[in-house]
Amino acid sequence: MDNHQTPEFLFGTLSTREGRAKRARTLNLGFQHDAVLHPIDPRPNEPITITARAGIGVAVKTSMLCYTTDGTLPEANTAAMSASLICTPMQCTSIDWDTLAWAYVQTWSATIPGMAEGTLVRYIIVATTDSGELIACPYFDLEVPEIRAQPDAYDHSYLARQMRYGTPQVYEFYVDTLSTPAWLRNAIVYQIFAERFAPNPGETFVELSERAGFFGGTLKGIISKLDYLSALGITCLWLTPIFPSPSHHGYDPTDPFTIEPRLGTDADFRELVVAAHQRGIRLVLDFVVNHLSNAHPAFIAAQRNPTSPYRDWFFFRDYPDAYESFYDVPGQPLVNTNHPEVRQYFIDAACSWLKAGCDGFRLDHAHGASHAFWSAFRTAIRAVKPDSATFGEVTDTPAVIRSFAGRMDGCLDFYLLELVRGFFAFHSLTVSQFDRALQEHFAYFDSLLVLPSFLDNHDMNRFLWIVDGDTRRLRLAALCQFTLPGPPIVYYGTEVGLSQLQAVGRLEEARLPMRWDEQQDATLLAFYQRLIALRRQTSGVWSMPRETVLVDDSRGTYVYRCGAYFVALNNTDEANHITLATGQKAALLVVTEKAVTLRLDNQLDLPPFAGAVYQILSSENRHSGGW
Amino acid sequence: MDNHQTPEFLFGTLSTREGRAKRARTLNLGFQHDAVLHPIDPRPNEPITITARAGIGVAVKTSMLCYTTDGTLPEANTAAMSASLICTPMQCTSIDWDTLAWAYVQTWSATIPGMAEGTLVRYIIVATTDSGELIACPYFDLEVPEIRAQPDAYDHSYLARQMRYGTPQVYEFYVDTLSTPAWLRNAIVYQIFAERFAPNPGETFVELSERAGFFGGTLKGIISKLDYLSALGITCLWLTPIFPSPSHHGYDPTDPFTIEPRLGTDADFRELVVAAHQRGIRLVLDFVVNHLSNAHPAFIAAQRNPTSPYRDWFFFRDYPDAYESFYDVPGQPLVNTNHPEVRQYFIDAACSWLKAGCDGFRLDHAHGASHAFWSAFRTAIRAVKPDSATFGEVTDTPAVIRSFAGRMDGCLDFYLLELVRGFFAFHSLTVSQFDRALQEHFAYFDSLLVLPSFLDNHDMNRFLWIVDGDTRRLRLAALCQFTLPGPPIVYYGTEVGLSQLQAVGRLEEARLPMRWDEQQDATLLAFYQRLIALRRQTSGVWSMPRETVLVDDSRGTYVYRCGAYFVALNNTDEANHITLATGQKAALLVVTEKAVTLRLDNQLDLPPFAGAVYQILSSENRHSGGW
Repeated sequence: MDNHQTPEFLFGTLSTREGRAKRARTLNLGFQHDAVLHPIDPRPNEPITITARAGIGVAVKTSMLCYTTDGTLPEANTAAMSASLICTPMQCTSIDWDTLAWAYVQTWSATIPGMAEGTLVRYIIVATTDSGELIACPYFDLEVPEIRAQPDAYDHSYLARQMRYGTPQVYEFYVDTLSTPAWLRNAIVYQIFAERFAPNPGETFVELSERAGFFGGTLKGIISKLDYLSALGITCLWLTPIFPSPSHHGYDPTDPFTIEPRLGTDADFRELVVAAHQRGIRLVLDFVVNHLSNAHPAFIAAQRNPTSPYRDWFFFRDYPDAYESFYDVPGQPLVNTNHPEVRQYFIDAACSWLKAGCDGFRLDHAHGASHAFWSAFRTAIRAVKPDSATFGEVTDTPAVIRSFAGRMDGCLDFYLLELVRGFFAFHSLTVSQFDRALQEHFAYFDSLLVLPSFLDNHDMNRFLWIVDGDTRRLRLAALCQFTLPGPPIVYYGTEVGLSQLQAVGRLEEARLPMRWDEQQDATLLAFYQRLIALRRQTSGVWSMPRETVLVDDSRGTYVYRCGAYFVALNNTDEANHITLATGQKAALLVVTEKAVTLRLDNQLDLPPFAGAVYQILSSENRHSGGW
Repeated sequence: MDNHQTPEFLFGTLSTREGRAKRARTLNLGFQHDAVLHPIDPRPNEPITITARAGIGVAVKTSMLCYTTDGTLPEANTAAMSASLICTPMQCTSIDWDTLAWAYVQTWSATIPGMAEGTLVRYIIVATTDSGELIACPYFDLEVPEIRAQPDAYDHSYLARQMRYGTPQVYEFYVDTLSTPAWLRNAIVYQIFAERFAPNPGETFVELSERAGFFGGTLKGIISKLDYLSALGITCLWLTPIFPSPSHHGYDPTDPFTIEPRLGTDADFRELVVAAHQRGIRLVLDFVVNHLSNAHPAFIAAQRNPTSPYRDWFFFRDYPDAYESFYDVPGQPLVNTNHPEVRQYFIDAACSWLKAGCDGFRLDHAHGASHAFWSAFRTAIRAVKPDSATFGEVTDTPAVIRSFAGRMDGCLDFYLLELVRGFFAFHSLTVSQFDRALQEHFAYFDSLLVLPSFLDNHDMNRFLWIVDGDTRRLRLAALCQFTLPGPPIVYYGTEVGLSQLQAVGRLEEARLPMRWDEQQDATLLAFYQRLIALRRQTSGVWSMPRETVLVDDSRGTYVYRCGAYFVALNNTDEANHITLATGQKAALLVVTEKAVTLRLDNQLDLPPFAGAVYQILSSENRHSGGW
């Protein structure tokens, strides 16, 4: 990732080698529980094993898992134990050596019996130390010499996140049989940056040099382009936040129950829902619970009145002026999503939108809220709309992303994003590295979470910009994106060649107004239409076991297959060809360039940066006839 | 460890935070097998699982474990497979996420059936990659972008060690029922730096300012001091190398079959053996196989004659001048311990010393030789002398140290050394940290290896020097050392107050000539005599489950027990006292100071840096009274 003008900061602090070392070191600090269950998404009557790690700066002598199954809160105070609290001793089941921490790490575990469907399990993990202290997960002693000697060697933002919901943290999950709605698994998603997609019919975007200003996109504008989107073929629309907010992006809401007046009205929203659904397009709203705007009435009340009931909604360090906020931006105070009223507030807001016709939510900075919150959220919205779906934005390690299985239906596939940009844009991965990482990645996630794929979004340089506007390479990457398991997302404008004027410094550079009419790249658009049509017609195929057919690091060619469908990619600036087995009859389904041709002698010619999807036709396996 | 004049370099490059990060990163590089078996020391008829890790820079598609059980070498060349080669496919049994490597890591494993006693199993691990390449363990691709971008982030000395014995490396182990001789488990070891202990009777040490010179210690000198050692009470003598060598330390031997003439003759050695054995003292020799002197005839022949059969004994990078050497010192060329003739040469030398009466070996830089070598070595020497024993010097992680279980009887306990120096000398560990680390450490090793303990040796600052000559703290640390499971080692002179004149720069500073007669600290010597007597009288007690009785971080007091024996330590410069349960009758067995007293009201007074071993006396050995 070192070979382009701007650093890729896809994972925030985890994008750098140093940041990754800090995180790795921090994982074996103190007494931690990562909210992962075994099995990760327990079904009724499955016993559930829960583990905690004791590492640097803690000497755990005994440990206890304390839980309730009747919805009451488990209390840490043993003197006030409720009748429904069940306490199970944990066992130290392994001691491992950690070279990075230069210490032993203990794993403690306990198993709770299988539960009936619908059971809410709430638990805390407590321990006694060698010195007789009672501690609870999460626990970190930052005063031990190892840490005091080099505090910067640890990931303090991770520590802060762990400790945000108090000690003991109450962890929660539901035992259920909820599964991911098929429509999300099969979706082709189009991400619209609400303020930048289309102005009211008959109007034009405001001309602005200030990228953070208001260009005039509206819900009515989006409605007017639904036929365009329908012709493109997408099946799901994800709108960035449309709730009242002081900013152009809306990720700092002041009221998640209504529509931002600049964008339109509640009536506009209902019209959008109906018009989209008429075209078979689902609507996903962008939902922020990690933080609110500091202009939100609850925050204003909390800050003005020391006895305000809203004060506990936020994390005041030094009331009223110092408080925890997102990326330390004062305008975005963090919210305590374990507070019962906060939880109800957001759930009520979400349910009101479901009732108004929305189909699900993209969950902004989802790892900022607790796992417990998302369990409650999912259970609540499913009760209102059984086929509603959620997918989270978790810009963290695959391990952390996977920990949200069972709490939401999917997570944006940030690791795939890194691989795809590395392979197709930066050429920092070889074919075999790319192939191997894909294999491992999909095996690691199995079918635990739907992993929507994307080449870029509103928080990073557009793909087309980092390949210097070379649409061949965009088409090639998209061909790959659309032939992997996760539902593909198209960031608005990508399909018509929308790019940037300069590198993302402030993020707004990747949020330029949509191109319409003659500004559009018609060739690219036609390609995307064909690609989307292919994906719709081969629904389910790309979730089948993926088999690597050809990996050629020296020639930069790559072929994989799912069933009878093959994908051939030439990721180099030299022409290549692929030899199909003699006797095989193949049909080209989608090509990235006209010059991709299948000769009679079964040679597939791939010009520079070109690719194709083809189908092997044989009497017993020609399921989709003519393309 | 930052609070003293000279850095502690106990683990070499692994002593620094940066070095540890490099190693941790390197562990998930390429395709590796760490020579660890499951179970770690397989007994007859136990199935044996063998695992390999595939990490960064390799795309393993299939993997195979190929082994023989008839002593023949497994061949990687499938075309030339011998009839006795058994090939078992390995399965990818897990995929884990590694945040430090920022990659997935695969574990591949295969199980071979239980074998009859005495079976020699030789195996290689091969794999095919996604690009069709055939590779074998160990395999590292240093050309991948992650590594090329920051080559210094990896531990190249570790890589070099892994690759030293070729690819594929032939791994070997014996299925046997060998166990560690009781005498080693119960030993009290005295380490003599041969050239510095005692001159011939009637002579005195040479006066020298050059520490690397020859001071005149001899075997006859040692013999003359056996009564001294016998009165001290030790049961085992470890002599640093006594074979011909150009250096004062002897760790670069030119002939491991004879005695260095400066030190004496073969007859002197036989006399030493007899005299030691008469006093119940075993004799352990220091054995170096990792490297030889460049003045060794084999190396001279190898370097002079390109067709010399000895050329393959060494690792020439660019014949004849560039070759692998220990710490890149040209005088110490590394030796290929997987070469059959090299192996026989060292085994013959070791066996000749066993026949001459020696009881075992301390194995210098043991991790420099292959695990396979040590399997063969142990089996061979046990055949010659069934109760001979070995313990290795492995200055590496506890995980690497533990990997030698079943290949040798014990390993010097370098991690305990770090803990003991950290707690008693540098005060960089709290009582609870020290206690917890001890618990974890002994649980991790279980009884897989004997772990001889030591406070210092010839390669580091003496303990007494780093505590500024404060013998109270030395006595306190020794009291702890002697009441832990591992057989304690006393580095010559420690018992009489021998220290240094300045910090170890060149290592010779810690190797000053032994003090004799009126130079000796009689109080310290008397203490060591009592301590050793206690250890002999309580043989076996300290291997019993150790129970923590008191950990007081604020007062710096620590009490632990094994059975009825208690150890109380005050690791601060303030007076403290410990309250024994009322009704308990205790007897002080060893105290570090006269002022340690047990009052009638069951208060144990501990002056600054003082400690005691006491026994609870009661009719039924009332084991948990009430502490």
